[in-house]
Amino acid sequence: MKKQFYVNGEWKSSEKYADLYSPYTKEIIAQIPQVTREEVDQAIDDAYNARNQMAALTAYERAAILEHLVQLFIENREKAASIISLEAAKPMKFALGEIDRTIETYKFAAEEAKRLTGEMIPMDAAKNGANRFGYTVEQPLGVIGAITPFNFPQNLVAHKVGPAIASGNTIVLKPASQTPLSALFLAELIDQTALPKGAFNVVTGSGRTVGEAIVESDKVKMITFTGSPSVGIGIRNKSGLKKVALELGSNAGLIIDKNVHLSDIVLKCVTGAFSNQGQVCISLQRIYVMDELFNEFIEAFTAATKQLVIGSPLEETTDISAMINPDEQERALSWVQEAVENGAEIVTGGKIENGVFMPTILTNVDPTLKVSCQEVFAPIVVVNRILSIEEGIAAINDSTYGLQAGIFTNDIKTAFKASKELEVGGVMINDIPTYRVDQMPYGGVKESGTGKEGLKYAIHEMTETKLVVWNQN
Amino acid sequence: MKKQFYVNGEWKSSEKYADLYSPYTKEIIAQIPQVTREEVDQAIDDAYNARNQMAALTAYERAAILEHLVQLFIENREKAASIISLEAAKPMKFALGEIDRTIETYKFAAEEAKRLTGEMIPMDAAKNGANRFGYTVEQPLGVIGAITPFNFPQNLVAHKVGPAIASGNTIVLKPASQTPLSALFLAELIDQTALPKGAFNVVTGSGRTVGEAIVESDKVKMITFTGSPSVGIGIRNKSGLKKVALELGSNAGLIIDKNVHLSDIVLKCVTGAFSNQGQVCISLQRIYVMDELFNEFIEAFTAATKQLVIGSPLEETTDISAMINPDEQERALSWVQEAVENGAEIVTGGKIENGVFMPTILTNVDPTLKVSCQEVFAPIVVVNRILSIEEGIAAINDSTYGLQAGIFTNDIKTAFKASKELEVGGVMINDIPTYRVDQMPYGGVKESGTGKEGLKYAIHEMTETKLVVWNQN
Amino acid sequence: MKKQFYVNGEWKSSEKYADLYSPYTKEIIAQIPQVTREEVDQAIDDAYNARNQMAALTAYERAAILEHLVQLFIENREKAASIISLEAAKPMKFALGEIDRTIETYKFAAEEAKRLTGEMIPMDAAKNGANRFGYTVEQPLGVIGAITPFNFPQNLVAHKVGPAIASGNTIVLKPASQTPLSALFLAELIDQTALPKGAFNVVTGSGRTVGEAIVESDKVKMITFTGSPSVGIGIRNKSGLKKVALELGSNAGLIIDKNVHLSDIVLKCVTGAFSNQGQVCISLQRIYVMDELFNEFIEAFTAATKQLVIGSPLEETTDISAMINPDEQERALSWVQEAVENGAEIVTGGKIENGVFMPTILTNVDPTLKVSCQEVFAPIVVVNRILSIEEGIAAINDSTYGLQAGIFTNDIKTAFKASKELEVGGVMINDIPTYRVDQMPYGGVKESGTGKEGLKYAIHEMTETKLVVWNQN
Amino acid sequence: MKKQFYVNGEWKSSEKYADLYSPYTKEIIAQIPQVTREEVDQAIDDAYNARNQMAALTAYERAAILEHLVQLFIENREKAASIISLEAAKPMKFALGEIDRTIETYKFAAEEAKRLTGEMIPMDAAKNGANRFGYTVEQPLGVIGAITPFNFPQNLVAHKVGPAIASGNTIVLKPASQTPLSALFLAELIDQTALPKGAFNVVTGSGRTVGEAIVESDKVKMITFTGSPSVGIGIRNKSGLKKVALELGSNAGLIIDKNVHLSDIVLKCVTGAFSNQGQVCISLQRIYVMDELFNEFIEAFTAATKQLVIGSPLEETTDISAMINPDEQERALSWVQEAVENGAEIVTGGKIENGVFMPTILTNVDPTLKVSCQEVFAPIVVVNRILSIEEGIAAINDSTYGLQAGIFTNDIKTAFKASKELEVGGVMINDIPTYRVDQMPYGGVKESGTGKEGLKYAIHEMTETKLVVWNQN
Repeated sequence: MKKQFYVNGEWKSSEKYADLYSPYTKEIIAQIPQVTREEVDQAIDDAYNARNQMAALTAYERAAILEHLVQLFIENREKAASIISLEAAKPMKFALGEIDRTIETYKFAAEEAKRLTGEMIPMDAAKNGANRFGYTVEQPLGVIGAITPFNFPQNLVAHKVGPAIASGNTIVLKPASQTPLSALFLAELIDQTALPKGAFNVVTGSGRTVGEAIVESDKVKMITFTGSPSVGIGIRNKSGLKKVALELGSNAGLIIDKNVHLSDIVLKCVTGAFSNQGQVCISLQRIYVMDELFNEFIEAFTAATKQLVIGSPLEETTDISAMINPDEQERALSWVQEAVENGAEIVTGGKIENGVFMPTILTNVDPTLKVSCQEVFAPIVVVNRILSIEEGIAAINDSTYGLQAGIFTNDIKTAFKASKELEVGGVMINDIPTYRVDQMPYGGVKESGTGKEGLKYAIHEMTETKLVVWNQN
Repeated sequence: MKKQFYVNGEWKSSEKYADLYSPYTKEIIAQIPQVTREEVDQAIDDAYNARNQMAALTAYERAAILEHLVQLFIENREKAASIISLEAAKPMKFALGEIDRTIETYKFAAEEAKRLTGEMIPMDAAKNGANRFGYTVEQPLGVIGAITPFNFPQNLVAHKVGPAIASGNTIVLKPASQTPLSALFLAELIDQTALPKGAFNVVTGSGRTVGEAIVESDKVKMITFTGSPSVGIGIRNKSGLKKVALELGSNAGLIIDKNVHLSDIVLKCVTGAFSNQGQVCISLQRIYVMDELFNEFIEAFTAATKQLVIGSPLEETTDISAMINPDEQERALSWVQEAVENGAEIVTGGKIENGVFMPTILTNVDPTLKVSCQEVFAPIVVVNRILSIEEGIAAINDSTYGLQAGIFTNDIKTAFKASKELEVGGVMINDIPTYRVDQMPYGGVKESGTGKEGLKYAIHEMTETKLVVWNQN
Repeated sequence: MKKQFYVNGEWKSSEKYADLYSPYTKEIIAQIPQVTREEVDQAIDDAYNARNQMAALTAYERAAILEHLVQLFIENREKAASIISLEAAKPMKFALGEIDRTIETYKFAAEEAKRLTGEMIPMDAAKNGANRFGYTVEQPLGVIGAITPFNFPQNLVAHKVGPAIASGNTIVLKPASQTPLSALFLAELIDQTALPKGAFNVVTGSGRTVGEAIVESDKVKMITFTGSPSVGIGIRNKSGLKKVALELGSNAGLIIDKNVHLSDIVLKCVTGAFSNQGQVCISLQRIYVMDELFNEFIEAFTAATKQLVIGSPLEETTDISAMINPDEQERALSWVQEAVENGAEIVTGGKIENGVFMPTILTNVDPTLKVSCQEVFAPIVVVNRILSIEEGIAAINDSTYGLQAGIFTNDIKTAFKASKELEVGGVMINDIPTYRVDQMPYGGVKESGTGKEGLKYAIHEMTETKLVVWNQN
Repeated sequence: MKKQFYVNGEWKSSEKYADLYSPYTKEIIAQIPQVTREEVDQAIDDAYNARNQMAALTAYERAAILEHLVQLFIENREKAASIISLEAAKPMKFALGEIDRTIETYKFAAEEAKRLTGEMIPMDAAKNGANRFGYTVEQPLGVIGAITPFNFPQNLVAHKVGPAIASGNTIVLKPASQTPLSALFLAELIDQTALPKGAFNVVTGSGRTVGEAIVESDKVKMITFTGSPSVGIGIRNKSGLKKVALELGSNAGLIIDKNVHLSDIVLKCVTGAFSNQGQVCISLQRIYVMDELFNEFIEAFTAATKQLVIGSPLEETTDISAMINPDEQERALSWVQEAVENGAEIVTGGKIENGVFMPTILTNVDPTLKVSCQEVFAPIVVVNRILSIEEGIAAINDSTYGLQAGIFTNDIKTAFKASKELEVGGVMINDIPTYRVDQMPYGGVKESGTGKEGLKYAIHEMTETKLVVWNQN
């Protein structure tokens, strides 16, 4: 049960270990190395020393490594999913879905590795550019420090490891404290590929020790972080001239226009609000329904929510299981209580049963309450009544976040209006804001972060554009 | 002689004024408003309030404004150049050259305004992307704070104002303390165009007051700064999630291979080393010559340097005039003295005559001396002997900076080797590192900065990429 | 009144001349040289001999020539328009509009000249591509033969001459027999620019003599033709391996969904159907209106059509004047008569008054009649009743042509459906099919042609993509 | 031994059969159906009927089909190679190499299927483009007729079938008469994938019957042909408005500068000249060596050529085997004789031994002789002496062909000069002209053809660009 961490192509033990508990059964499932500052620094050194070998791989070779990884995930689909389910209490159906997306993510990474080119510069468009031949090349940065969250222990890691390999960088990965097993399983798979030793490293342990070492190292050229705004901004402010990509949170909103068919959208809303217990960056947290449809929507939405199956994450029928840990469930409960004390009404849920926070629908919620204005990261959704599309747009924009938003409408002008005016990184027309495919550009505005994921985009952020100009005279 | 500053389309007086001196004659040439924190905040508010009107302009309208500005600079070419010459002691021939480039910069900005589109996303490349139609749009950020240096008082301003207008942003510009007149003249010209009031604002005064107000404001979404690394990094670390583009300094290097014709390159080296008294971000500061050519090069280079005409910036024959201020000349002198005390040899120059720091060639310079390892920003160039191209590359890379580098060679493999191994933002093959045309991507690695200028690239950095996905089902 | 033609930078007389008549007054307005085969061949030789000088111009130089041309058209706006009006009977308001678009076309050409680059090829994505550096360059073809129609005597010429100059090609232009004066005026303007002698040549005379010489010459590398399908296909079949771009005709259709506001669209329909007497490649010829709106639409559309001012093209209030020649008016009349004999109903128009074919609305028209299934190229529009959008789409697709089509609708799914299913080169949602801006890709499917105009696209067609690969080993 | 052809997902017999002989053993290896005009027309109908189903596949589905095909080729690598070896007498080592490239070709096709998007159009760059949202989509054409040659029976088929599937088109394939077995084997593999029935069809038989049916059919929207110029131009002239892509022949040339190391290049030249018995479109046919190196090169090149192993194509050590048929060997012999009669000198080879045309080096060859100016398509290479690079460039350009050319040089200016002045589709610097990787754009100028292969480029040619514009007002 004692796990090792993975550095420079070797499995290593540390001095200290911490117990890892199942969120659902509360049993100990593993003992995780808590690496020291020296061990992190060594991992960074190893990644740094491997950088030239990694940068020298051809696109064909980088793609072949990633295709091999794709193959290994296909062969280990069930196993990889069950690890997620075990350590994160993600119901198996969603854990399997996450592995399918992980496969797609690495596949896109493999393909984009082969398309990573610079561009020609029309030098002679300038008076002094005659006879110059100019172009750019995209060079890898060197060492990338990746800090990843618990809610997608494989796919959000893949969104950092995939583009890093595709672009010829080396990586030091610090997985979330609650989900190290998935990252270590990834290391087992990568170890079977031809990736150069030292190009991929996993260090487990406390965020403070590992995170600080990564942020402070001069050898780390970029930090890619997914997590909370406060930690993210802290990283940015300590990073000097390092590149920093931050995928922070949101309180994603959805507008429902009066002219839509509810039957088309209710199940999508249930999925958006409650998948993975709402522990999704673009979980559907706020729904704004036009007055004409409001009552009808609440009724259908509540009915569908009550159909959700609550239980063990390892059961294949389970829709909803425990949140990532008891403290988080208590925190969510206290936010609901705050809401109720301030006039909100619980339509369903709002309590913990058998260790599981029940899917919760609230209404009459003031926008200043935590369940509305902060990232709830729990199976809680607020449903609001609006009298106009403008009101809905204003309500969604009245947030410190701006990751994604959605609107259901049949009307062309309304759709264009929403696409322009919603202050978010992505607008989904006739989809929930939770919609994401892994190749699309993904990333927020305001405190939702900076930088884009989506393979092509993440790869671009992990390279340095170098101009080369030849004087042909 | 009392100047006003320009905010919200109006000329305003301030409470305090500072005298502006000619660097060459030391005479007072103007009195410059020293704006208060409140005045800066007001300018930011005005820019913020103008942002929606600015964002609503069509590409055609933004381009038309910039084309108008191009026309106004063409009509005021001499006048604009003489202002630069007056306040920055830039010899007229170079000041006129700067205006010609300014014209080209705004012209490219006009053209790129019309090419600012997003891209289509192949949504259905993912399993869950069927029937989705996705694309990105490039939206302006809002208010951009621009902080500019003294060495190109119009063209480095144009590299911030041009792309900001092209992309539909509004601007608060803080020009360098020594060169406010050019920025205010720009305001006079912009005032004649159809740019919405409040979209362009110039605030003059101390870097501390104005800079801090810009960096600390929540209404400013991006800071674009050209200047010293220490100030740049300081801005970055206080900027939270703001976008930050930094064009910092360098100690640009050049390699001369043994097989080149000196007659083709000596004058280019003189230009690269001494134009604008070496006060150029990519001024040629370090030359590494293959042993076989070293003596011959030193001789020819020194002879050409001695031909330079020293004198008043307003004389059309002048090549070299005073540096930006006496303190800077003293600083440069002390660096030369440090070098000499540590074994360096002065080949020519190395002193101040008639208030002008003479063009200076040093040799036998240890790489740890300031004139080699820091940004000298003075008419000083170090010439070094190398025994191999590898040694030259290593010497250039042994720097905290990495903006541009050059190599003169006839050999294909040597050229490719240099293009790959030189750790800089731009490699110039058979040109000096000082080579720049305004549409090319320009920006450094390491402490030379982050972000690219060059119109297309700067425009891209001044926009937010928003994804829009339509479910067509 | 005797005009000369323009070859190799010189004005030349020919042996034979033909009288040119005003379509409206029937007066002789000029005598036009009818060049011989030898004279065309000489023009081609001159263009061929100028090709290397033209290809050697930098992008900056080509753009400067085009910008100069833009300036000359701005200065000669009224004059250029009145020439069009005189020779083509285009009402002045539309002739001025054509010059404004001509200006925009050359402006876009100037700008695209500066953006004509190849692309980088990711060579090392293939196993055998390691260490190869590959890219493409876009090289001019050499001599381009341009054959242009009468309906836009400047702007459709600009769509061939602009991209040819922008891409560094030389041109032999054969204007339509009825509109040589505009082409010769263009030659007067170009003669004032720095375009190399021989790079632009205008030969006037019979389509047979000039056209055949151009099509048969081995020195002509591309033919760009706008005109009738039969002539176009004939050119293609005789062209061997020459590049051929054909912009042929259409019978453009429009669908009007039931949910739209007629007040927004009626005037657009009048413009689309009757501008330039319907002599527009994308003139609105067929309107399919949903049953619910049909009667109301016919009424409003007829009322608006009756407001059109008929008269001399030189009057600034005139909306409708004579067609290009009396034979064409008779041909149009006979098509209307055929329609009436087969059950069609004339709602308004259908006759010639004072030498002008009156704007004509037909209904109850069988799709096999010439006014529906062939290109009418006259101020005649057919309005049809449909019971479903599908029926409208099928009706538009039931054509040998496919240039552009339009639909007015508020519904997202209907719009996407139309965008997919309409078999045309361009689908206009909530615009008439006549909508065109000059930078957009423009060109049809089926017998409407092959190849795209729109500056960027036309330029690309006028270049040869050359791959260059360097082995860096 | 009686083969069937493959139409609409079914294997079919025909009325007539023709014997297929081994080029090396002259034994009958199969009996091949000689389809009738009606059978071809039926195949075209089936492909036409399948076009909508094919066009409706998502990019993900098209890519999955192609990835499956990749997998099947990996599993059947030896078998597929031995079929090529058997029917085309290609030595096994090259046949295996062809299958490896076929795999790469389909793999690139799979990947490009997922990147097939249109682009955004900056509508509001025009005065009349305000509020318009425009973009292009790349739509499949429908039915593509593919006519393929004998020299790469799988990979040149893959360059037509791969992009056709990737872009959602359906295909009617006519393989070369001598190499139907590879095409039929491909059908066996495709039959195992999820490609819709009717989307891929193979018709075997005479070029006249099948080719004419394809060229004349209105249902075929594009013809993609690789073969001889005379046939290709004939197809083009009968194709009306069909798209036509032609990859015709060449007499590829190479320049060897005086400063290169022969040891690096001699084996490359042997490979370029004699692989697949010179039956390669870009086979190295003409070598121009600078005087200083000429004798030394001839000596080394001849020595290396004499090391080639002659024998049965099925032996793994064989380098050279029989040409595609005895008539072709006789034709090659007669060309050598013509050369000798006109002063050429045979350095080695020049005769048939044991049924194999021996690898032949000629020198002192007048450029007007067939072995120099026509496509030799046999293991014959002409080596010429030049006194300057300009002479070499002129010699290569003095050809009716222009597919690829190569130059070996160390000098930057010489390389750029060659890259600009060589009139070919692709210039290889420090590689033989025979160099090709399958993703690169590939296609010639002059009589070498029109249109580009290379997956991304072929895919683009197999689509129609449709513009869609939404009026957002």
